Amino acid sequence: MTGGTSEQWSADRWARAALSRLAEPGDKMVHALLADDGPVGALARIRSGHGDLRRFAERVRRLDVRRDVAIALKVGARLVVPGDLEWPEGLQDLPVPPWCLWVRGPEQLGPAVERSVAVVGARAATPYGETQAAELAAALATAGWTVVSGAAYGIDGAAHRGALAVDGRTVAVLASGVDRVYPAAHAALLGRIAQTGCIVSEVAPGSAPMGSRFLSRNRLIAAMTRGTIVVEAGVRSGSLQTLNRATDLNRPVGAVPGPVTSMTSAGCHNAIRNKGAVLVTSAAEVVELVGRIGEGVLDEPRGPVLPADELDPHDARVHECLPRCGGLDLDALLSATALTPMVVLAALARLEEAGLAVRKDGRWRKISSARP
Amino acid sequence: MTGGTSEQWSADRWARAALSRLAEPGDKMVHALLADDGPVGALARIRSGHGDLRRFAERVRRLDVRRDVAIALKVGARLVVPGDLEWPEGLQDLPVPPWCLWVRGPEQLGPAVERSVAVVGARAATPYGETQAAELAAALATAGWTVVSGAAYGIDGAAHRGALAVDGRTVAVLASGVDRVYPAAHAALLGRIAQTGCIVSEVAPGSAPMGSRFLSRNRLIAAMTRGTIVVEAGVRSGSLQTLNRATDLNRPVGAVPGPVTSMTSAGCHNAIRNKGAVLVTSAAEVVELVGRIGEGVLDEPRGPVLPADELDPHDARVHECLPRCGGLDLDALLSATALTPMVVLAALARLEEAGLAVRKDGRWRKISSARP
Repeated sequence: MTGGTSEQWSADRWARAALSRLAEPGDKMVHALLADDGPVGALARIRSGHGDLRRFAERVRRLDVRRDVAIALKVGARLVVPGDLEWPEGLQDLPVPPWCLWVRGPEQLGPAVERSVAVVGARAATPYGETQAAELAAALATAGWTVVSGAAYGIDGAAHRGALAVDGRTVAVLASGVDRVYPAAHAALLGRIAQTGCIVSEVAPGSAPMGSRFLSRNRLIAAMTRGTIVVEAGVRSGSLQTLNRATDLNRPVGAVPGPVTSMTSAGCHNAIRNKGAVLVTSAAEVVELVGRIGEGVLDEPRGPVLPADELDPHDARVHECLPRCGGLDLDALLSATALTPMVVLAALARLEEAGLAVRKDGRWRKISSARP
Repeated sequence: MTGGTSEQWSADRWARAALSRLAEPGDKMVHALLADDGPVGALARIRSGHGDLRRFAERVRRLDVRRDVAIALKVGARLVVPGDLEWPEGLQDLPVPPWCLWVRGPEQLGPAVERSVAVVGARAATPYGETQAAELAAALATAGWTVVSGAAYGIDGAAHRGALAVDGRTVAVLASGVDRVYPAAHAALLGRIAQTGCIVSEVAPGSAPMGSRFLSRNRLIAAMTRGTIVVEAGVRSGSLQTLNRATDLNRPVGAVPGPVTSMTSAGCHNAIRNKGAVLVTSAAEVVELVGRIGEGVLDEPRGPVLPADELDPHDARVHECLPRCGGLDLDALLSATALTPMVVLAALARLEEAGLAVRKDGRWRKISSARP
């Protein structure tokens, strides 16, 4: 892309647009052609139809890049290619990066996913899972993180909605062309994402969402983000493939636990047990997982701290032997605690200091609550 | 215990019984005396009341071992000391083992806990937690494992009940004397455990359940078992101390996940995140965790396997391009798949072989379900 003439620049883009119609995502032979000959050369080789490239003949015959570009323009989509400022840095980690990306929406894709988390999961989600996905996404978006997902039913949709609910940034990566509304019931959701964030696809406008394209799409979600969180997933959920791709790319992965009785949490639990996923229960824990060093270090969660909880064992034993009313003298305390006088007196001094014990007329009693 | 005369044997037992009244569990000074002088010698030193041992004076004055033994006999309890066949092997791993154990019930304690798991958790448990504890305990007991717990409200009680429900073995370790019914509402439960399993305590019969004794009791549960499972726990639940003690003793620890919205699962999730606890969702996973090598190795959970799930990517792409009705000829398939004729024909052959595709009049269509 760099160092060429403007004409070359334009021809390369055009060739990559053509490739997104001709070659399925992840095609290793096309990747090798691109590496050897560049986009224009690779396209010429495919058009020539020699040898194994004959498999593209039918698609070459039907190729109409102008039509694809016209569809893109109609929905306000643009073409993004490697070398563009908008090209997401993380995609270079893929064994076979996309030939190009088709992008709709006001956000600049690359900068938008620089601090992003994939929040994905089962289409057949439970209300618990959808609530968790939405709350997690909302909290991540509030903290300035972009929420990336696949716009599917269930967890994906809930994640996008959660980010949108707090006016956060969210990016939807589709298995179909960026013009296609899939699933159809998500037309309004996709419309809102296109108005505020980004809708992304590596296949040409107009392309249908074939099954194999969902697998390819999942690798884009994994590569574009700093880490992937699965909120709910059955043991064979496709969202677990996104998690596997993230692991392949050395991105951190997390999973939200749920009731062990819920089949849609079984894939999450298995990922934690066997796939190296970290158990996460909050956006702060997600940020700790995917953030760079020092970006989100957490203290362990704790209950409220009462002074009596922090006593050393001897002090605690003396404290528990003290009555709430009346009081005990030293001899009685020595008998009750079976500790030495020195230990008991030192403990009483510390308990008085902490406001947990009080002495009156040579007898001690406990004060149950901490001083204000 | 071994190699001495019968008289010595009897004197040692009597001295250990006295120590269980005089010295709190875990007293390091008493442990050192025992190591240096044996039980009879240690007791004599404590009776002498020199130096720091003066702290025992009041308890020595009140000591009445005959009374304690009489209480034990009344509830059918026996004294078990190191060297007895019934002494649990795991207790020798403790920095300060119990001076002796008081045991009620028909089971031989040592053999009963040879294959045992601690199932513990919060007193303030939810119905979800109690159900999981009971089901886990029932499944473990059915598989021949002894369920050890602390007879407390909530998870502990549910674990004992789950084991009893399948006529399994269960052991309750108390913080009070074995004659005390604590909590009082668990009288019937403790009665059933005493009739079928074991009730165990390291403090003398008649002793009250002081707070510090719960901590000591937790170390016994951890040491006696092959591993500890926490079913539900708030972030400050005492049951997490049992888990910490088990970790100190190099015993495997596990925790059952739950909804992230449940405060009583927060301690479990934190243990999985930060304390090395393994997430467990079933008795089989618990056995895999605590069993010796080869005792309970599990396959990862999987959904039902359909042949179409196991196809290689090319076969899968061909399969998904096949219509269910009518059929496509080879040219149409080459165009639809953008694969070479050789790849498509080989894929079709494999799909026919697997019963996933059928050819008629030069056209192929898919068969959606696998052959019976």
